[in-house]
Amino acid sequence: MDLNLFVARRLIEEFLLEDISFGDITTNSIVRDDVDSEGYIISREKGVVAGLPLVEIVFQILDPKIICRMLVRDGQIIEPGMVLAEISGKARAILTGERLALNLLQHLSGIATRTARLVELATGGKAHIVDTRKTTPGLRVIEKYAVRAGGGHSHRFGLFDAVLIKDNHIKIAGGIKPAVEAARRGVPHTTKIEVEVEDFAGVREALGAGADIIMLDNMDPLEMGQAVDMIAGRALVEASGGITEDNIGAVAQSGVDLISVGALTHSVRSLDIGLDLKDIKRR
Amino acid sequence: MDLNLFVARRLIEEFLLEDISFGDITTNSIVRDDVDSEGYIISREKGVVAGLPLVEIVFQILDPKIICRMLVRDGQIIEPGMVLAEISGKARAILTGERLALNLLQHLSGIATRTARLVELATGGKAHIVDTRKTTPGLRVIEKYAVRAGGGHSHRFGLFDAVLIKDNHIKIAGGIKPAVEAARRGVPHTTKIEVEVEDFAGVREALGAGADIIMLDNMDPLEMGQAVDMIAGRALVEASGGITEDNIGAVAQSGVDLISVGALTHSVRSLDIGLDLKDIKRR
Amino acid sequence: MDLNLFVARRLIEEFLLEDISFGDITTNSIVRDDVDSEGYIISREKGVVAGLPLVEIVFQILDPKIICRMLVRDGQIIEPGMVLAEISGKARAILTGERLALNLLQHLSGIATRTARLVELATGGKAHIVDTRKTTPGLRVIEKYAVRAGGGHSHRFGLFDAVLIKDNHIKIAGGIKPAVEAARRGVPHTTKIEVEVEDFAGVREALGAGADIIMLDNMDPLEMGQAVDMIAGRALVEASGGITEDNIGAVAQSGVDLISVGALTHSVRSLDIGLDLKDIKRR
Amino acid sequence: MDLNLFVARRLIEEFLLEDISFGDITTNSIVRDDVDSEGYIISREKGVVAGLPLVEIVFQILDPKIICRMLVRDGQIIEPGMVLAEISGKARAILTGERLALNLLQHLSGIATRTARLVELATGGKAHIVDTRKTTPGLRVIEKYAVRAGGGHSHRFGLFDAVLIKDNHIKIAGGIKPAVEAARRGVPHTTKIEVEVEDFAGVREALGAGADIIMLDNMDPLEMGQAVDMIAGRALVEASGGITEDNIGAVAQSGVDLISVGALTHSVRSLDIGLDLKDIKRR
Amino acid sequence: MDLNLFVARRLIEEFLLEDISFGDITTNSIVRDDVDSEGYIISREKGVVAGLPLVEIVFQILDPKIICRMLVRDGQIIEPGMVLAEISGKARAILTGERLALNLLQHLSGIATRTARLVELATGGKAHIVDTRKTTPGLRVIEKYAVRAGGGHSHRFGLFDAVLIKDNHIKIAGGIKPAVEAARRGVPHTTKIEVEVEDFAGVREALGAGADIIMLDNMDPLEMGQAVDMIAGRALVEASGGITEDNIGAVAQSGVDLISVGALTHSVRSLDIGLDLKDIKRR
Amino acid sequence: MDLNLFVARRLIEEFLLEDISFGDITTNSIVRDDVDSEGYIISREKGVVAGLPLVEIVFQILDPKIICRMLVRDGQIIEPGMVLAEISGKARAILTGERLALNLLQHLSGIATRTARLVELATGGKAHIVDTRKTTPGLRVIEKYAVRAGGGHSHRFGLFDAVLIKDNHIKIAGGIKPAVEAARRGVPHTTKIEVEVEDFAGVREALGAGADIIMLDNMDPLEMGQAVDMIAGRALVEASGGITEDNIGAVAQSGVDLISVGALTHSVRSLDIGLDLKDIKRR
Repeated sequence: MDLNLFVARRLIEEFLLEDISFGDITTNSIVRDDVDSEGYIISREKGVVAGLPLVEIVFQILDPKIICRMLVRDGQIIEPGMVLAEISGKARAILTGERLALNLLQHLSGIATRTARLVELATGGKAHIVDTRKTTPGLRVIEKYAVRAGGGHSHRFGLFDAVLIKDNHIKIAGGIKPAVEAARRGVPHTTKIEVEVEDFAGVREALGAGADIIMLDNMDPLEMGQAVDMIAGRALVEASGGITEDNIGAVAQSGVDLISVGALTHSVRSLDIGLDLKDIKRR
Repeated sequence: MDLNLFVARRLIEEFLLEDISFGDITTNSIVRDDVDSEGYIISREKGVVAGLPLVEIVFQILDPKIICRMLVRDGQIIEPGMVLAEISGKARAILTGERLALNLLQHLSGIATRTARLVELATGGKAHIVDTRKTTPGLRVIEKYAVRAGGGHSHRFGLFDAVLIKDNHIKIAGGIKPAVEAARRGVPHTTKIEVEVEDFAGVREALGAGADIIMLDNMDPLEMGQAVDMIAGRALVEASGGITEDNIGAVAQSGVDLISVGALTHSVRSLDIGLDLKDIKRR
Repeated sequence: MDLNLFVARRLIEEFLLEDISFGDITTNSIVRDDVDSEGYIISREKGVVAGLPLVEIVFQILDPKIICRMLVRDGQIIEPGMVLAEISGKARAILTGERLALNLLQHLSGIATRTARLVELATGGKAHIVDTRKTTPGLRVIEKYAVRAGGGHSHRFGLFDAVLIKDNHIKIAGGIKPAVEAARRGVPHTTKIEVEVEDFAGVREALGAGADIIMLDNMDPLEMGQAVDMIAGRALVEASGGITEDNIGAVAQSGVDLISVGALTHSVRSLDIGLDLKDIKRR
Repeated sequence: MDLNLFVARRLIEEFLLEDISFGDITTNSIVRDDVDSEGYIISREKGVVAGLPLVEIVFQILDPKIICRMLVRDGQIIEPGMVLAEISGKARAILTGERLALNLLQHLSGIATRTARLVELATGGKAHIVDTRKTTPGLRVIEKYAVRAGGGHSHRFGLFDAVLIKDNHIKIAGGIKPAVEAARRGVPHTTKIEVEVEDFAGVREALGAGADIIMLDNMDPLEMGQAVDMIAGRALVEASGGITEDNIGAVAQSGVDLISVGALTHSVRSLDIGLDLKDIKRR
Repeated sequence: MDLNLFVARRLIEEFLLEDISFGDITTNSIVRDDVDSEGYIISREKGVVAGLPLVEIVFQILDPKIICRMLVRDGQIIEPGMVLAEISGKARAILTGERLALNLLQHLSGIATRTARLVELATGGKAHIVDTRKTTPGLRVIEKYAVRAGGGHSHRFGLFDAVLIKDNHIKIAGGIKPAVEAARRGVPHTTKIEVEVEDFAGVREALGAGADIIMLDNMDPLEMGQAVDMIAGRALVEASGGITEDNIGAVAQSGVDLISVGALTHSVRSLDIGLDLKDIKRR
Repeated sequence: MDLNLFVARRLIEEFLLEDISFGDITTNSIVRDDVDSEGYIISREKGVVAGLPLVEIVFQILDPKIICRMLVRDGQIIEPGMVLAEISGKARAILTGERLALNLLQHLSGIATRTARLVELATGGKAHIVDTRKTTPGLRVIEKYAVRAGGGHSHRFGLFDAVLIKDNHIKIAGGIKPAVEAARRGVPHTTKIEVEVEDFAGVREALGAGADIIMLDNMDPLEMGQAVDMIAGRALVEASGGITEDNIGAVAQSGVDLISVGALTHSVRSLDIGLDLKDIKRR
């Protein structure tokens, strides 16, 4: 599922204003408006790239006539030294947009790369790696896009597009069953209802209440396998909490359908990607 | 330098809308509007806290009568199990705002904690640890605040509030001297001019051009010491590039004034902080 | 599921600006700022009320100290002559906000009333009456709220929170099965997949592809009954297209789970509700 | 008076975001970005069309290269089966924008059609059919445009562009004369002053106060005729309240200048218009 | 006609952000958050004050608990040394908001003072002094308010709330009569139609076409008097163009109804007003 | 340093909406959409032009195909009768945008012209003429641009991009030294620290505290010269307060580096520039 560019553009305008405010005083005082240049976006590290369409939007806002030639596509594996894109247009636009373009690309590629790593490790089952709501405020739509670029899948986007009943909801409702029933009455029929449980009693209650998805919170892979057997296909099963590179293989082999990993987005290491400027010339 | 809360509130309204959109369908269908509760924000990990004033804004937007009692202040060291804040008001507001409040607090505390670690390691000199423009798009003002909470200092906020002349500017201008002169002519006199150099020739040129700050890009600590000697107090000296926990002590001891670390904000590990709900009651 | 008032307030600020622009020139030139008054919102027609919390927001924006005492709650049946709310505060705020408050209340009560009528007629089965995306642009969140106030339920809110595969998607995908599979791969697992079909072959294909919801488009009640039998609980069944007051009973009795009615929101007759001003006095 | 497209575009961006939010998950997962298609907007009902320029804006935002060929113009009578417009461009843009485009077109054509019907019935006099402020919140500028497309005329746009003194203003001012005088002092000289009256005494007072327009509120056609005679061209005369298809002819023949009908916009029945997709092909 | 404070507040939030951006770095680094203070707004020059309600909004946004005691009201004559308002609350809020508060107050009081001067000189007739659309972009609503505070009146607010037919419209329409007729057909009946004329022939044509207001462009007072006689009360007469302090008396005595002066708002001299801080104390 | 056009465009969209709101009712009712025309922007007064790129943006928003041919560049001296630009496109766009385009051009050219006059008078030294924060709210970025166009330089843009320690900060900090130290600790190292002083003692303290810039507030030129000698190049020296055309020469000759003049932007006289429409034709 791709990014909607109209939506992305509105985000990027705000991001540009954060960095530029009233103007890039360095570039505007040193570089004349009629200087053109060519920039090369170059990977300095192995990983999975994500965010190239956003890079294009950044530069197009600053110079509507700029040309961005993409040499790879989001989701592709990139190697150190690979040229990812060629940008050709006003030197000012390239210099002013460089940092935001790279911040986005490095951050999203960091997410995609980490996702791909976990996808690779989660073999031996059918589990999808999914993200969570532990995203960076303001970046959810593009961070979830990066997870997909890395081979992961999207969990719900926010509080509005799916039901996730957690311990506190259950406490207030007085049990899983009344919580699920209240949700069933109150939310669109198009929305699945997920229930977070901590033990087998919870699994049984959630099943009995007709939950569409059961989230096993902080179980160990052995317990997960037992829960999967207990559920027997009557609900999707999501493993959540304490997933690491070390245990994700075992978790996947437990037979769960989904493994959600908050760290995909809440603890991101940027991928090292740079921009080289070449061929400066006056028009 | 504190956060301006009026500015922060506008950010947080946008972040809330990202998560809520048309409504928290789980909470709104399960929890009645007249249920009150108390939430405790609890640290699950040692670190330096940052972001508590933002937590308060999140909950106040959702329930203007909510009461947030802060038990620690930003910048303080927190230990696992410590209660950081008590939130008391509508259960709906606490449940709907919980994730955003924690996302902010965990992310900013992650930054503050990492900053504090580097500050601690950078002993034996006078160097300040400073951030960069490698921040998460849309979060710069609060990420830089978190760096300060961790004992670091702020570099420029964006392209608008200081001059930083980099290799590409120098290439286009035809040298460091013409670049600095163009900047001097074009930008406010209130703004310092920093020049990025890669070798001693660059240091000399920048000094000759009257740069206020000289950024030593990717030098080793030994070279840095020599550059510091060469500059002899005529400009501030900033070390940049390739700074790690391993070498930051040596860098600091080289005598530089500033050590800028992009990873403070571009590769953040969240600090683990949670929210427990208690004392649910109907009004 | 209630309205989130923080979200509603942002909508209403825009609506107020549409009507006020630079000022209510009539009221501001005739009524002094220190005149207080009391307004009574009075029903002039029988129906189901919806929108009272929005009325309160309208007046509070214009006079933060205004007091709105609600005498009924959204979803209640109202009779001609009934006082729905008492507003007491600045006369200017009441006069300036009156039209927007009534426009919202009349429009939403019109929707709730019509929904309640259809709910009443759709007896003899288990069907829920649900809305569609045929809402007035900009008002979706509050129009869907009004449908719920009238006893209806919400279908998906937009293109983002559920999958609805229509004829054109099927055509492009080359069949129901590949369309459902592409969606299953691409969208969050929390989201149900609905397929619109026009005949029994479509029903069979959709079932085979594992659709969660099957929309029977423009079938007659007899065919619907047969489709319900064919589906036998393996998917939710939604009747859509050509639903009128005359046939909704028969449709409901066909055993479908959901009856979606675009006219709930695309062809609304306002409910007649007025505001009387009393007790004008200078402070 | 045409729509200003710059103004309309800003409205439509918000409407699109309401429907799309983070993305059209159905279309984006099923339809590739390089699939082109052609859509035909087809009338399924007789009426007067309004809103075609808005349709074009919807699709252009989603695909700046889309081509919209309009076969009719707003204000024209359309018949069932008529092709109103051909849209040719990305299939994704057509599918994602279809609902908003149709919602706008159906709603505005519903208004235009109803207006045209009343204009047709209001023969035998010189009366213009005009709208009111009973518009759908957020849509006033385009709903009033639709009234004009249907042959009606615009009343004031809001509280800011004309004075309309109603019973409550008169009560507070202590009479029609002081109310008109206060308005005359306070508002731009470019603005007409209209007074709402309920009886002949009111007509006389308003005339004496120099009202530019006198609104006869809920009079019967016979009384209106007498009021028109009494006013004798010294003010414009507007009939308001209780206007129906049955009595509008008589009202028009009473000699009033204007007949305002709130139901033109507060109780709209959509005109049935659809979009057919054809010629799907990969680029 | 007063300012709508809800509308003004939205303007002022934008103005504050322009000055503060990410923070008042001077104040926030020097002044602790718990320091309170009292500020006195003091006139340093004789004039007519305007803008005090805006001052209050500025400080309330920065410190919702601040107290502003106004000692004079907009429109009052102020003398050097007079205390206009006492502000008491957080020292930070007073220091951060001071410049914007004064910029608004000085600018608007400059407009009010100049208006009052012209009103005083325009004796011997019935003429109102009115503003034009030559306002500072973004400030129209508050600049026009300042004109009223100075005893002037408002002309139309923009292109939307009245018709003003100028030479180019006449040229395109092919004459005054067709231009007026086209406008009459196209615009709300609540709107007056003004025509700009340059000579007596124009006056006659405009009268014949039924213009509500005739603007005499760049006539001398003698010609104006003749035009007034010619018009004889059948339209309002506005003098425009080349009005100075020297000739405004003669213009007024020519019998025109309105004298519009672009310089009221396009060439404003600020009134000198300052803010003194006192009584600094820690809470 | 040039304007960033992306930033300017966002400002201008808001300015256009202020004037147009729901539409230019005069132009839209009189001028058909298919009428093209050519407009000439003509100077009627000698001065320095500023704002031409903004004029182009105004018209391009209203008619994306309009062509603006600029015959002079910002900063150039213009004479009465000179054609500054030719605009060719839809007559509607030219008529609707004319006032905003001229308001911007006249206002900014007024600033540039006054700046140039002061620059010319400030001979005999090395002083730069700089602006202040006494700008029109909302226009700071373009007013400061106009000052540069007139040969002046920019002071800080707002409270965020430089430190300016004033009397009240000093009072609260308990002296210049502690104030400077607090700022030095709290603000980015890239930011210069300026201190406002009123006498030689202040100069000495500021120097001792290591201020980067010392603002001499309301000193006479003789005292300024002495202060310059005392400072002897160890800080930039800014003259501020009471600068007029009469004394600016003497101030400049005192040897200060900067002369800041609030009146450049707080008391602007518009430069007289007009727009003539020609060559009207139907497409």
